Amino acid sequence: MSSRPYFFPAERLRHFATETFLYFGVPQADAEQAADVLITADLRGIDSHGVARLHTYFDMLSLGRINPTPKIRIVRESPSTATVDGDNGLGLVVGPKANQIAMEKAERAGSGWVSVSNSNHYGIAGYYVLQALQRDMIGWAMTNSTKLVAPLWGAERMLGTNPIAIAFPGLEEPPIVIDLATSAAAYGKIEMARREGKSIPQGWIIDRYGHMSTNPQDMIEGGALLPLGSDRERGGHKGYALAAMVDILCCVLSGANWGPFAPPFALRQEIPSRSVGKGIGHFFGALKIEAFIEVEEFKRQIDEWIRTFRATRPAPGTQGVLIPGDPERQAEAIRSKEGIPLLPAVVEELEDIAQKTGIAL
Amino acid sequence: MSSRPYFFPAERLRHFATETFLYFGVPQADAEQAADVLITADLRGIDSHGVARLHTYFDMLSLGRINPTPKIRIVRESPSTATVDGDNGLGLVVGPKANQIAMEKAERAGSGWVSVSNSNHYGIAGYYVLQALQRDMIGWAMTNSTKLVAPLWGAERMLGTNPIAIAFPGLEEPPIVIDLATSAAAYGKIEMARREGKSIPQGWIIDRYGHMSTNPQDMIEGGALLPLGSDRERGGHKGYALAAMVDILCCVLSGANWGPFAPPFALRQEIPSRSVGKGIGHFFGALKIEAFIEVEEFKRQIDEWIRTFRATRPAPGTQGVLIPGDPERQAEAIRSKEGIPLLPAVVEELEDIAQKTGIAL
Repeated sequence: MSSRPYFFPAERLRHFATETFLYFGVPQADAEQAADVLITADLRGIDSHGVARLHTYFDMLSLGRINPTPKIRIVRESPSTATVDGDNGLGLVVGPKANQIAMEKAERAGSGWVSVSNSNHYGIAGYYVLQALQRDMIGWAMTNSTKLVAPLWGAERMLGTNPIAIAFPGLEEPPIVIDLATSAAAYGKIEMARREGKSIPQGWIIDRYGHMSTNPQDMIEGGALLPLGSDRERGGHKGYALAAMVDILCCVLSGANWGPFAPPFALRQEIPSRSVGKGIGHFFGALKIEAFIEVEEFKRQIDEWIRTFRATRPAPGTQGVLIPGDPERQAEAIRSKEGIPLLPAVVEELEDIAQKTGIAL
Repeated sequence: MSSRPYFFPAERLRHFATETFLYFGVPQADAEQAADVLITADLRGIDSHGVARLHTYFDMLSLGRINPTPKIRIVRESPSTATVDGDNGLGLVVGPKANQIAMEKAERAGSGWVSVSNSNHYGIAGYYVLQALQRDMIGWAMTNSTKLVAPLWGAERMLGTNPIAIAFPGLEEPPIVIDLATSAAAYGKIEMARREGKSIPQGWIIDRYGHMSTNPQDMIEGGALLPLGSDRERGGHKGYALAAMVDILCCVLSGANWGPFAPPFALRQEIPSRSVGKGIGHFFGALKIEAFIEVEEFKRQIDEWIRTFRATRPAPGTQGVLIPGDPERQAEAIRSKEGIPLLPAVVEELEDIAQKTGIAL
């Protein structure tokens, strides 16, 4: 099978994704919202979280595993916090609503913090923090996900890749957008190496027995990703602790399924041995900059921060220091003009949806 | 010089540290507070942040570089946030007061977030999150510090080891206490290897030219620590992004000196080329658990979380999965009985203070 990508205009994919959600009875505004999260991922170069996942949502909706018309509600709140039950809706719909609540709280109370249960995968964490930027807020977003990562010194999958995102607006400079998984490497990279028959760097995975491995096949056959830091010497306990932090804020605080009990995202994944809560969990935060400091003063200092860090003396053989968010912004600049490259396997999946639903691709 | 430690009862060191602060005119309650932060570090086995640092505080106070009687004030606030100016006081005094403000805000608004400028080094981040536990809150603490860490693909020191701490209370189980520096390794470990003439693992440092090195001497001679993740392949950009997050929340949001402009902690460190704010910065947060979920329900789930993770199948050749905070709690159990081990070099420093102040050690 060829691996040369096909290029699609973002708007065409947006329309296709929206129609796919509408097909299952998702309300118009929610369908557009869900598609927006996916297309933003594709535009920003995070291919694993864009329309490449549409078929998985399609499967889950087809089987009634996700509620297309959830009644998302606040089950507890205070001036600056809320706990939200997503009613088993699409994470791509529940996430934006909960994030909205966090920002509204922040508007009035200076900050807003929302822990969400009973949700499903919500796309890229970066999407949510970009929303906050538009309101001169510092946005935070975290989520748990299906188990893939071993805690340090463990030999089995116990945690998701549990990302942390946060963003800071500049004045003349583009924003600093941090969006990182707490594992040493993304699962997608291991998949890719396996397809290409290549070995992977030490520190990415362990095999099913808990030994470090550079063979990507060992991950597929019951191994696990390692946390950021990889081993004890290089701080693998820190990556594990960060993943634990995300897990607890998203799930224990909201009443969702934490750790190894996170329900599977895709049909091929195993169902956990038991349930300890409802769905998967997210955690959103918003800090109103003006509650701390003049917004313009903050943004001017962020500009200065960015320029100072760009001017760091570069390490030999590198392109020098990047600012978090640079690669995604560069991807967006290119892809909004040239279209979104989709691998043949992804196009086939979209064609399968087109065939089953009658929606034109 | 022998490296066999001497053992001191914690209370004796607490008294000595308190008297040392009093000697400079620090008010009684503040002196006791500052000593409490230091002794907590020693009890918890974080030797680098305990009375081993007392001589540095002594130096700074002797030279009038730190204000012994600061007027700590809120310069801006909202229901759930505050910006605090520490008036160049001891971080060991400014930190606890700002943390207190965060917890009081959380009591009323569900959460409290305080960014602090014009402060100095505040001891262990873990101290602050332990305080929040006593009030059934999830405590957060971060601080910037003197530059030691290179951003990924940079060849010079631009960031502090910028720690992140957060803690979660259990019911029958002890709390989960996360307290991690965002560098791959602690500076103290490099110092120790250098004294012992040993090489260090790949991934801890670069030399002054930006090349990876396993020779600890290269760090001393103008090299830099690497961020958590170490290199691009293993996620060094993530450790850099986390350090940047801490830097911005602590300093840009409060108006303190960010990045390479953090003022030096010790006299031997170079003074930055310019100042972009006031002192160093901290960031404290408190989330009131009850604002999200029943406290007992939360704690029961934390117990379950802890037991589930302890039961992870262990990786071969390891002691199995630990819970964040385990090593510190074990150290505290031993040291509160057997005393705090101080290296001869540290005892000499304390004796120097005793001689100069007339306070009996």
